[in-house]
Amino acid sequence: MTNIKDIALHCGVAISTVSRVLNDHPDVSQDTREKVLRAVKELHYIPNTSARNLVRTSSDTIALLVKGVNNPFFARLIKVIGREIAQRGYSLELHHMDTSEDELRIGAQLTNERKLIGILFLGGRFNYSPEEMALIHVPSVFCTYTNTFGNLNPSAYSSVAIDDKQAAQDAVDALVALGHRKIAILTDNKDDRSISELRFQGYKDALAMHGIPFEPNLVACTGTFSDMRAIYEATSRLIERDSSFTAIFAIADLMAIAAIKALSDHGKRVPEDCSVVAIDGLELSSYTLPTLTTLVQPAEEMGLLCAKTIIELIEHPGQNRQYTFETVLRPGGSVCRLNG
Amino acid sequence: MTNIKDIALHCGVAISTVSRVLNDHPDVSQDTREKVLRAVKELHYIPNTSARNLVRTSSDTIALLVKGVNNPFFARLIKVIGREIAQRGYSLELHHMDTSEDELRIGAQLTNERKLIGILFLGGRFNYSPEEMALIHVPSVFCTYTNTFGNLNPSAYSSVAIDDKQAAQDAVDALVALGHRKIAILTDNKDDRSISELRFQGYKDALAMHGIPFEPNLVACTGTFSDMRAIYEATSRLIERDSSFTAIFAIADLMAIAAIKALSDHGKRVPEDCSVVAIDGLELSSYTLPTLTTLVQPAEEMGLLCAKTIIELIEHPGQNRQYTFETVLRPGGSVCRLNG
Repeated sequence: MTNIKDIALHCGVAISTVSRVLNDHPDVSQDTREKVLRAVKELHYIPNTSARNLVRTSSDTIALLVKGVNNPFFARLIKVIGREIAQRGYSLELHHMDTSEDELRIGAQLTNERKLIGILFLGGRFNYSPEEMALIHVPSVFCTYTNTFGNLNPSAYSSVAIDDKQAAQDAVDALVALGHRKIAILTDNKDDRSISELRFQGYKDALAMHGIPFEPNLVACTGTFSDMRAIYEATSRLIERDSSFTAIFAIADLMAIAAIKALSDHGKRVPEDCSVVAIDGLELSSYTLPTLTTLVQPAEEMGLLCAKTIIELIEHPGQNRQYTFETVLRPGGSVCRLNG
Repeated sequence: MTNIKDIALHCGVAISTVSRVLNDHPDVSQDTREKVLRAVKELHYIPNTSARNLVRTSSDTIALLVKGVNNPFFARLIKVIGREIAQRGYSLELHHMDTSEDELRIGAQLTNERKLIGILFLGGRFNYSPEEMALIHVPSVFCTYTNTFGNLNPSAYSSVAIDDKQAAQDAVDALVALGHRKIAILTDNKDDRSISELRFQGYKDALAMHGIPFEPNLVACTGTFSDMRAIYEATSRLIERDSSFTAIFAIADLMAIAAIKALSDHGKRVPEDCSVVAIDGLELSSYTLPTLTTLVQPAEEMGLLCAKTIIELIEHPGQNRQYTFETVLRPGGSVCRLNG
């Protein structure tokens, strides 16, 4: 393996000169700089930064625990988080979990087994208890967690999320404003103490506020956020059971895309025969036919804030904090006025 | 923190009994087993497996270097790889790269800085040299690499890929069989010494085989696999420059989806006015309107084989090997017979 001495020998300069070039010191002539950089390339020299890392800390690894890896909204968050953490000089270790696993137990086990300096959680329940939180002995940030069903003290956890209930209400409001009253919902789950239940509650609250009776018949549970076939089939069963609805609120963009296909296969055009609104705001759903009307979650901002917060908690241990982002309606071609 | 002694005290049993329960030994009564497991849960005991890990090796970390994280085909591979590696008792460290970075230099730097036992590369160039490969000092597997533009000896690298050139030829063949001769291509790049160039070559070869002249005017370069806006705009420029084509071969599913939207916005219906074929076979593109006709890459099988191969190379150092998968045409609604 080439080392810094080889480079110096090859170029006929002092080791300290090579070092100055590699560390971008100004007092090196342009000629020498070019010669050294050429040699670095030709001899395939890889700077060894281990020593530098050892000075800083025994570990620089932040774990990212993801529950639901097929979720394209998560993919955007992971990308931003990965970039920011690398830029700040830390390493990111990714762990995927099945939806059947418990994120806090896995997180606790990881901190025991590995030298982690922080954990980011992505996806999971919304009902943590103080006893469960006490399992995590390193700084942590929960991306998408809200404490709705939990009983944590705000000082006990950090989180970045949207107001899921409000977003669901906004989606239903948008449909009601277009004259719809028979509004079906496509949700992962009704009682998972997590994001699906919260959006389902927002749907029910919005109906109540508009004086629209809740109809259990118009609730379709998919059991998944990402399995398109299961979502398609749940929508098909809904249509075959009760096709009186004129609009669907899907709690995620991918669900809406599969629903539009199911509606089309049952002879229902979107938006003429059925309007569809979702939550997510994926770039993809601006390019489907029709384009999707959806409440946009600011994925880039959320991912960046998750990364910044965990690094801040690691570098300057301090108070936990909770951030909530607003969603914004992105108009698309999947809704229209009832009988309009 | 609860330890195994606390559990034993709490249950009034010997430490060795708790250990037998935790390690699933058969010689424990059902009653005792239940009592211990209940205590494990109530006292939030987390088994410490560090000791076990230390015996095995100083590190159990395999790195996965991903170039192009927004690629949904990669997302499927990453999920399968992550699951298999975790099940086999190893850890996966994920690193994202910009498309401007060089995967081999980053890989070499990582093995220097961190204790890695293996590297998986996902995405990247197709033109590695023996000197470059020599930079990587741990077992490695290249997912999606083929040595087309490189000059590696087969003994020098392991890879899992599809035959990109053949897949592109199959796509063009399918269009020609439907009577199309004016066939445009939507590609990331024409000369990146990578997947795009190879698929572009397959397109040109297929045209030549069918005696169809190559028209540079019908080549649209997007410069990206995942930025939908850029793909949409490249397609729009193609249509505005020369709308004589009756079919488009898009080298990836997402490209085809954005292209169909651009065609629609220019008053061209798919498939009536323009047929579209792609390569990927994402589940998503079975649920778009129209559904996509596409050559399916077996992502699950490929990801699994990548993980199995790297673990095999780590556990039983031996010969490198190359695997090539075939793609299969999945018929969809995005093609029709010319004037049919």
